[in-house]
Amino acid sequence: MSSSSPLSFTILGTGALGGFYGSRLLLGGATVRFIAHSDVDWIRAQGLRVDSPLGDRLHHPVEVYADSDPIPPSDVVCIGLKTTRNAQLPELLAPLVGEGTVILNWQNGLTLEDELAARFPQAVVIAGLCFLCSNKVGPGHIVHLDYGRVSLAALDERGVDWLPRLQAAFGAGGIETDVQPSLSAARWRKLAWNIPFNGLSVLLDRNTDAIMVDPEARALAERLMGEVAEGAAACGVPFDPDFIPKLLATTERMAPYAPSMRLDFLGKRALEIEYMYRRPLREAAVQGVRMPGVETIASQLSILDRANRGV
Amino acid sequence: MSSSSPLSFTILGTGALGGFYGSRLLLGGATVRFIAHSDVDWIRAQGLRVDSPLGDRLHHPVEVYADSDPIPPSDVVCIGLKTTRNAQLPELLAPLVGEGTVILNWQNGLTLEDELAARFPQAVVIAGLCFLCSNKVGPGHIVHLDYGRVSLAALDERGVDWLPRLQAAFGAGGIETDVQPSLSAARWRKLAWNIPFNGLSVLLDRNTDAIMVDPEARALAERLMGEVAEGAAACGVPFDPDFIPKLLATTERMAPYAPSMRLDFLGKRALEIEYMYRRPLREAAVQGVRMPGVETIASQLSILDRANRGV
Repeated sequence: MSSSSPLSFTILGTGALGGFYGSRLLLGGATVRFIAHSDVDWIRAQGLRVDSPLGDRLHHPVEVYADSDPIPPSDVVCIGLKTTRNAQLPELLAPLVGEGTVILNWQNGLTLEDELAARFPQAVVIAGLCFLCSNKVGPGHIVHLDYGRVSLAALDERGVDWLPRLQAAFGAGGIETDVQPSLSAARWRKLAWNIPFNGLSVLLDRNTDAIMVDPEARALAERLMGEVAEGAAACGVPFDPDFIPKLLATTERMAPYAPSMRLDFLGKRALEIEYMYRRPLREAAVQGVRMPGVETIASQLSILDRANRGV
Repeated sequence: MSSSSPLSFTILGTGALGGFYGSRLLLGGATVRFIAHSDVDWIRAQGLRVDSPLGDRLHHPVEVYADSDPIPPSDVVCIGLKTTRNAQLPELLAPLVGEGTVILNWQNGLTLEDELAARFPQAVVIAGLCFLCSNKVGPGHIVHLDYGRVSLAALDERGVDWLPRLQAAFGAGGIETDVQPSLSAARWRKLAWNIPFNGLSVLLDRNTDAIMVDPEARALAERLMGEVAEGAAACGVPFDPDFIPKLLATTERMAPYAPSMRLDFLGKRALEIEYMYRRPLREAAVQGVRMPGVETIASQLSILDRANRGV
């Protein structure tokens, strides 16, 4: 394949992330194949609708599949599933991943890429950290609210040459990207937002703007961020001194937003606790650092999640 | 007054505590005057009803008042109000406290007795730590579920001679008492229960038995207890090594119980956060010790409390 030919993508999960980025990649000229779960028939019949400040789009027809087996090989397989479905991930990925296939992981949390590389040594593993306010509001219907940048970080040197090609594909669809030299540092910085705002949106039953506007809730979020900073430093990727103030300022400017964990909770779906909370707690603990406030809200989330789903 | 004459009590607040202990003191032969708030007319007309494993009682007529001014001087003034009403406490107490009046404080939290002594130097301040499962279920109607022991601790040596007389008055009403040599140690030990179980009953929306039966919720309660133990140790009153295991075992044997903070939350009343959380956090911080999990749940409680009451 010459480097000038458009890339082909298979997108695992046609939700808030997969639906949005798939739409932008399509618009940029890439070949995009979607795997959908509950709404595969809907999307096949009605198409994929993405409302966005970038323009509202209806993609119809789209290549959409209920599972991996019949899908032609793609250059890049993007993981847009919730981490709560990661038990199924190896089985879903196996038919899609050949020698040199790029796995672009959009999931949040720690240690995901290491697990993928261990399971698929023939693949090129790249993290794509999505800074996106987007919600799935109905079958085949995504509403993009704000942002969209993707930070790319290769797990190892095999991914490095792929980064400009991925940047070109996303850029052609109007998506800003950047390249991060340290995957671990990028993951921890993203956790500094996800850990407080996903958790508190559930525990305080409110969106990000309502957290930021309440001085006590904002201070709580900031203390949790401080713990994440300690965890990151213990894992060898300390934050810049101005990182947390900047992150708070960015959140303040953000449009009112229901983090995905809040939507999952309200929809009585499983919460992404394992990779977003438990793994960071474990990685920090291995380095001798506790994050006791994070540990407290992680336990609360887990207990409330089980009660919420009656399991 | 000879030491053989029965004591007279004024009870500020005819709730779960004041109603129950007032009933038992009456049954023991003491003179008891109640101050009630919303249900003073009800109690005057219908009496005070206390259902208890010790026997169901209806006290009618009872001496009940809407405020302090018309009440004859009593030997002992008991504080059975919520700490959320402590801004009014000096005004309510002033007409009741003469030279040598005993103030028996039933409230939960730290630094209460010091504040009382500073405001009423003529009084004898004694803490009465209530180990009681009791709820107010309606006007003039208390349901006592379990326990009832009162731990007495004098703030200073002026209270010491009073302790056996108080023990006699409570004992005559069938209430077990003990005397604690250290008020501060007794307060911290009580906080080791109140901090986790009051807070988590609100945040996890469940009673003590449902906390204890869930291994993750129990573990969270135990971690919070561990932080309280660190706070207590920093304040010079370390727990015995077997204190927390015993406290958990006692809680396990307890009848299903809605802690007062949960009832307050469900009733949209203000939560007792200041004395039960903020003061212990502050006292520990003065000694250089943080209790980050406690700090986390205290902030959550405060934020949810304001939202719950729309303030």
